Amino acid sequence: MNFPSKLIENAVEEISKLPGIGKKTALRLALHLLKRDEKQTLSLSEALVAMRSKTRYCRQCHNISDDELCGICTGNRREQGVICVVEDTRDVLAIENTSQYKGLYHVLGGIISPLEGVGPNDLNIESLVQRISGNTEVKEVILGLSPTMEGDTTAFYLTKRLKPFDVKITTIARGIPIGGDLEYADEITLGRSIVSRIVFE
Amino acid sequence: MNFPSKLIENAVEEISKLPGIGKKTALRLALHLLKRDEKQTLSLSEALVAMRSKTRYCRQCHNISDDELCGICTGNRREQGVICVVEDTRDVLAIENTSQYKGLYHVLGGIISPLEGVGPNDLNIESLVQRISGNTEVKEVILGLSPTMEGDTTAFYLTKRLKPFDVKITTIARGIPIGGDLEYADEITLGRSIVSRIVFE
Repeated sequence: MNFPSKLIENAVEEISKLPGIGKKTALRLALHLLKRDEKQTLSLSEALVAMRSKTRYCRQCHNISDDELCGICTGNRREQGVICVVEDTRDVLAIENTSQYKGLYHVLGGIISPLEGVGPNDLNIESLVQRISGNTEVKEVILGLSPTMEGDTTAFYLTKRLKPFDVKITTIARGIPIGGDLEYADEITLGRSIVSRIVFE
Repeated sequence: MNFPSKLIENAVEEISKLPGIGKKTALRLALHLLKRDEKQTLSLSEALVAMRSKTRYCRQCHNISDDELCGICTGNRREQGVICVVEDTRDVLAIENTSQYKGLYHVLGGIISPLEGVGPNDLNIESLVQRISGNTEVKEVILGLSPTMEGDTTAFYLTKRLKPFDVKITTIARGIPIGGDLEYADEITLGRSIVSRIVFE
């Protein structure tokens, strides 16, 4: 693409570094900002810089937090005996939105992926081990990881690391999604949902 | 959504003001920036602010430009007698990419849309009339507008405004897209493509 100005080209270049945004979309966004009031661009850019430079992470669970400890870790209505291990903050938000979970979290900050060069040492795994070894109150660790190759690898590794401790290790159920059509479910999911069938209430 | 921090919430709020980006995508983009080097966020934000505050528009055709007159208006290989009227810069880029057009442009900066409150006075129409009235060199005005309700309204208005001048007014051809399947073309397009059939070369 031949951009009409160097400034636009730079902006498009930077915007299209974001995931899922190609050159065409980036140009659309840039031209949109050009049409709007300059204030909008300024407040967008300030919000991004403030977020990037000032965001803190909870000392205990590594979730994004305004303070040293996050609202969930300090929440006095949360069950202190259950820790749900998740990949990132988005998963915490997703689980919180269900209103079905009252325990604590542990955010790994990624998932073991040899293909992308992410090993156990790049994730918050050591601090999870410390957190559990120093606290007999923790009775259960739920592995809230995606049922993918990487998720399973990470789950396998975590199970091995947590074996020495007296905690129950569980994983979120895999099965047919609610509202999903049995006919269209893939064989592996359907097979697993039969093997791990549950008592009908 | 309950965001884990005020900073994230602000950033998501600002990002989701962009067209076609909802809260979920905005959060994904924000978390992506958090994972990357701080430099990336800084250069993104600088590029946006620089673009918004420093971008200039060509005095003659209103296309985005680094100088007072854009590269197309000053290009000495361009036909000075043809002006293609388009909605915005993206259309200029799209037509330039075809390498089929060697004339000049006139960027309206929008399209007449009563529903969105955009009237003729909000667009660069007066300057087009001036440009043509003061220049007998211009022989043809091509209306390069989308074949939508708004595009047709704008084309109709422009035709009326340009009637007093000795210029040929043409419009880009409407018809079946190349590679398109006749069977799946809508009736209006197919009907028009029969009425405006062209001599087979």
